[in-house]
Amino acid sequence: MLKGILNYSHYLLALSTQNGETVIDATCGNGNDTLFLSKKVGKEGHVLAFDIQDQAIKNAKALVEGHNCSNISFIHDSHVNVSEYLSSESKVGAAIFNLGYLPKSDKTIITQGESTISSIKSILGFLRQNGLIVIVVYHGHKGGKKEKEMILSYVMNLDQKKYHVLRYDFINQKNNPPFLLAIQKK
Amino acid sequence: MLKGILNYSHYLLALSTQNGETVIDATCGNGNDTLFLSKKVGKEGHVLAFDIQDQAIKNAKALVEGHNCSNISFIHDSHVNVSEYLSSESKVGAAIFNLGYLPKSDKTIITQGESTISSIKSILGFLRQNGLIVIVVYHGHKGGKKEKEMILSYVMNLDQKKYHVLRYDFINQKNNPPFLLAIQKK
Repeated sequence: MLKGILNYSHYLLALSTQNGETVIDATCGNGNDTLFLSKKVGKEGHVLAFDIQDQAIKNAKALVEGHNCSNISFIHDSHVNVSEYLSSESKVGAAIFNLGYLPKSDKTIITQGESTISSIKSILGFLRQNGLIVIVVYHGHKGGKKEKEMILSYVMNLDQKKYHVLRYDFINQKNNPPFLLAIQKK
Repeated sequence: MLKGILNYSHYLLALSTQNGETVIDATCGNGNDTLFLSKKVGKEGHVLAFDIQDQAIKNAKALVEGHNCSNISFIHDSHVNVSEYLSSESKVGAAIFNLGYLPKSDKTIITQGESTISSIKSILGFLRQNGLIVIVVYHGHKGGKKEKEMILSYVMNLDQKKYHVLRYDFINQKNNPPFLLAIQKK
């Protein structure tokens, strides 16, 4: 009944995503969130799905194949360049980040605090009112603790007059399970 | 769209409470949660509403008056004695704690870490599978920080094989806003 981290991320994305709008999967990985978002925004919507790894883009494309997802743009680039793929008038309804490494792949290719924060900052500039950024913070891998601390420090200092920042965290689990951060624009 | 702490506490209680069962308001205060729980469990259900302050019991009784809430037992006693008011076979579906002091009243009469933890332990023994304890942690008052730290230390060490423990916390707000803890029995 208490939703797990992945269920809760989809619950929040579903609540905050409107049919026909632009949304971002900042770390498309194996494509699960990309497919979920594609269905939520519908044919008139648009999903920008970023990944720096060719393998991730291939996996994600394979996952969505057969789902009639003509609304996805797969972008083989870092999410740090997100603004290059949006027009200055673009409004974004939601974005999701899954931090860490590509599951079942090279654990040394990981998201980095500096670029993750830079990307979050960019997306905040495009976020519509009540729009949401969800960040699933995996931090058990090498480099994960540093990124976690940088991200936490950044989001805890976001102006409470402009943003709600929620931490959703199962705090009695061992082995550094992921937790969720959600930034909602007021 | 991100639910505030009080909305989220009622959302969780509504999800976890079944018609006809026994539930506990461990700190009935002005009676808002008592009334909410009374409506949720229905005529066949039972709400045990505890408070150590006579004024709180009076306020809560006044609040529920006219709502036809024959299923509430107001108990002018500490929640630390909760087991005295349940039979050994009792099953509890949900319980809520609002830590701190009675709003608009004497700020020196506060919940205390030792007795709050003792009461949580008692209720865990009566909780049915998937039953839930919600704790709204107010900690900005004198004594609040100590209780917060005791409660966190206790719940973070609950066995993850037996319980989910969630922290739901808006982390960019100043002035020590309350946060929510939820313990779900597996």
